[in-house]
Amino acid sequence: MNYLAKIREQKPLIHNITNIVVANFSANGLLALGASPAMANAPEEAAEMASHADALVLNIGTCTEDQVKAMLIAGMAANEKGIPVILDPVAIGATKFRTDAVMQILTELDITVIRGNIGEIAFLGETDARMKGADALMDKVEPEIAVYAAKKYNSIVTATGKTDIITDGSNYTLCNNGSSMLPNITGTGCLLTAVVGAFCSVTEDYYEASIQAVSSYGVAAQLASEKSNGPGSFLSIFMDELYRLTEAAVQQSAKLHEYNCKGVGSNDR
Amino acid sequence: MNYLAKIREQKPLIHNITNIVVANFSANGLLALGASPAMANAPEEAAEMASHADALVLNIGTCTEDQVKAMLIAGMAANEKGIPVILDPVAIGATKFRTDAVMQILTELDITVIRGNIGEIAFLGETDARMKGADALMDKVEPEIAVYAAKKYNSIVTATGKTDIITDGSNYTLCNNGSSMLPNITGTGCLLTAVVGAFCSVTEDYYEASIQAVSSYGVAAQLASEKSNGPGSFLSIFMDELYRLTEAAVQQSAKLHEYNCKGVGSNDR
Amino acid sequence: MNYLAKIREQKPLIHNITNIVVANFSANGLLALGASPAMANAPEEAAEMASHADALVLNIGTCTEDQVKAMLIAGMAANEKGIPVILDPVAIGATKFRTDAVMQILTELDITVIRGNIGEIAFLGETDARMKGADALMDKVEPEIAVYAAKKYNSIVTATGKTDIITDGSNYTLCNNGSSMLPNITGTGCLLTAVVGAFCSVTEDYYEASIQAVSSYGVAAQLASEKSNGPGSFLSIFMDELYRLTEAAVQQSAKLHEYNCKGVGSNDR
Repeated sequence: MNYLAKIREQKPLIHNITNIVVANFSANGLLALGASPAMANAPEEAAEMASHADALVLNIGTCTEDQVKAMLIAGMAANEKGIPVILDPVAIGATKFRTDAVMQILTELDITVIRGNIGEIAFLGETDARMKGADALMDKVEPEIAVYAAKKYNSIVTATGKTDIITDGSNYTLCNNGSSMLPNITGTGCLLTAVVGAFCSVTEDYYEASIQAVSSYGVAAQLASEKSNGPGSFLSIFMDELYRLTEAAVQQSAKLHEYNCKGVGSNDR
Repeated sequence: MNYLAKIREQKPLIHNITNIVVANFSANGLLALGASPAMANAPEEAAEMASHADALVLNIGTCTEDQVKAMLIAGMAANEKGIPVILDPVAIGATKFRTDAVMQILTELDITVIRGNIGEIAFLGETDARMKGADALMDKVEPEIAVYAAKKYNSIVTATGKTDIITDGSNYTLCNNGSSMLPNITGTGCLLTAVVGAFCSVTEDYYEASIQAVSSYGVAAQLASEKSNGPGSFLSIFMDELYRLTEAAVQQSAKLHEYNCKGVGSNDR
Repeated sequence: MNYLAKIREQKPLIHNITNIVVANFSANGLLALGASPAMANAPEEAAEMASHADALVLNIGTCTEDQVKAMLIAGMAANEKGIPVILDPVAIGATKFRTDAVMQILTELDITVIRGNIGEIAFLGETDARMKGADALMDKVEPEIAVYAAKKYNSIVTATGKTDIITDGSNYTLCNNGSSMLPNITGTGCLLTAVVGAFCSVTEDYYEASIQAVSSYGVAAQLASEKSNGPGSFLSIFMDELYRLTEAAVQQSAKLHEYNCKGVGSNDR
C-alpha cells in the first residue's frame, strides 16, 4: 500500500506541538509532502485542535511547563479520538526537565511511535548501551536498543543514525537511505518525526507507515544532496524533492532490510 | 500613487505581534520589500514598541493568553497614535480560544484591515456562507462575504483565495494575480498581512494600499513560480522577487477589476 | 592560531537563549560553521544546559520575563563553569523593558563579549554619540564609542556596521568585510553573535576570537553576495559558504587593521 499517495489525496491535518526552532521548517516540510500542518501550543486550545486532527506530533525541543501541559491535554484528546500520537524526545537526558517531561508524557499517554536519534532511544531504553554515550552510538547499528525500548514502552520505535532502525518489538527494519547532509541542518530529525505522523495518519499499520516514512524521507534527502553545494542549498532543494517525490523513486532507491527479532529470519524488501 | 516606492524610501517600522511559525519569514519578507520589521511580543514592551511604529500587525497563529494581552495593549497605543492596525485571524473558528481572541481584539480595537483567507472571512462575517465550510469556499469568488464582513466590522477586508477580494464595504476589487505555489508554503498569507501593513503605513488610503499590496505580492509570486522547481526554491526566489520588484512589473502584470457594491458599475484598473 | 579549524574539530556546544525570529537561522548557521547548537529557553533547565556547554549566547530579541530569568540562571552557571558568555542587546533603548533586561544581565553576570550594531553599542555606552541616533551612526566608524563601552562593562565589544569594530578597551581592530546584503536579512547580526560564541568557545583569547569571527563571517558573506540575486538566494548561499569556508579564503580576503587605543601605533593584519 502506497501511503505517500494517500497523504496527497487526503491531506491529513497534523497537529504539531513543537519547538520554536523547527516550527516553520516542520510546517513547510509537511506541506511539501502533501499534508496539512496545524501548529498550536496553547493549553487553552490543545484539546480542541487535536480533536480536529488526523495525527498529533509532540516535540519537546524547547518545551516549557505550559507546553508540556498542552501536550498532555492534546495527547488525551488524541488518545480518546484514536489518532496516532508521535513523540520526539529531543535531547532527553540533557536536562532533568526534559527527561521528566518525556517520562510524564510516556506515563500518561499512549504513544504510537517514538522517533529519536539512537542516543535518545538508548537513554529511553535505559539499557547498558546508554553508558556508551550518544556520540559513540551514532555510527553504530544496534537494533537491540530500539527493540528493547519498543517493548518497554509498547510503541513503535524509530531510531535514526547512519542506519535507521524501525521496530515494533517483534520485527525490525534497517533503512540505509538518507544523506550525510541531514545532520548539518537543524530540525531534520524533528521534521522526520512530523513526517512519520503524516504517514501514520492514513493507516493503522503504524510499523509499515514508519518504515515508508523513513525510507521516503531518506530517498528525498539523497536526491537533494546530489544537487546541493552545502546545507543552505540542500535545505531548499530538499523541500522541492519532498514535493516532487514519487512512489516510483522511493521504490527504486529504498534500501530496506527486515529482520525477525528472534533472529529466525530476514528478508530484503 | 506608487506606494512601493514610498515604502523603500521611508522604510516604515512595522511592529508585528505574530506566531512562532512565521516570525522569521515575515521579518525577511518585510525587509525584502523595503520595510523595517520589529518583532516584539512581550506585554511589558507592547505599548512602547507600537508607539515607535508606522503600522501594527496582529497575527493569532500561535497565540497565548500573554500574547493576546500584548496585542490589546499594543493595539490601544496604535489606535491612540493613529497608525493602521492589521489583523490576521489565523484559523479562526478552529478553536474557541482563537475565536474569542479575535472577537476581543475586534471589540476593543479599531482594526484598519482584516486580512484572512475566504474561509476565515466567512466565519467572521457569520454569513450563511460559513456553513459551506472553508475548503468549499477556497476556489470560489464570493465578494458578498467580504463586503458583509467589511460593513460589520467597519474595516477594509482582504479575503484571499484563488481570486483575492479587497473591499471597503462600498466597492470591491478582485485580484487575479498570485501563484498556485503559495498555499504550499506556510505563512504566505501571514506575510501578505504584514505586507498590507507596510503599504498602509505610507498612506491613509487603506483601501488603495491593500489593493496595491495584494497585487504587488501576487505579481512577485508569479515571477517566482516561473523560476522555481517546488516550494523550497520558490521560497528563496520569492524573497529575491520581492526585493527586486518594480512598479513597472506590477503595472504590467496586475490583474485587477473593480466593482461597485451596488452593482451599478465596474471597471478594469 | 586558526580557530575555524578548531571549531570544526571540537564541535563545541553553544547554548543559545535567543529570540523566536532567529532561533532556526542561528542553529543552522552554527551547524554550517561546524559547531553544535543547543537552543533551550526554559528557566527549569537553563543551568543544567549551560553546564554542558562550551559557550553561552544571550539574545534579548523577543525576550519575556521568563526568558530573562532563564538567561540569568544560565549565565550564573556559565560564569561558574568559566565558559564565555556573549550578549546581544537587540534593539536596546527601543523599550524600557529591553534596556532593563540588558542592564540586569550586565550587572549580575560577567559578560565576555557584547555584540551589537553601533547604535546599540552607543546606547550602552551612554556616550554623547547616542544622541545622534542609531541610523545616523550606522555608516560611520566611531571606534571611541566601542572602546568606551568596552571599558565601562569590562568586556570585549564588537560593534557592527558598514565597518565593524572589535575592541578590548586597549586596542581596537576595524574590519571591512561583509556585504551590503546582510542588513536585508533578519538575524544576520544575531547569527554573528552566535558565531562569536563559537569562536570564543575554543580559546581564551576572546579578543582574537572575536576578530576572527567577524572577519570569517564577513568573508563568507562577500562570497555569497557575489553569487546571489537577492536576499532569498543570498541566505541559502550564505549557509553554503559558511559550511565551505576555508582558512585560506579568510586569510586571502580579510580586511583587518588594528590600532592602539592611545593612538600610538597601528598595523595591518
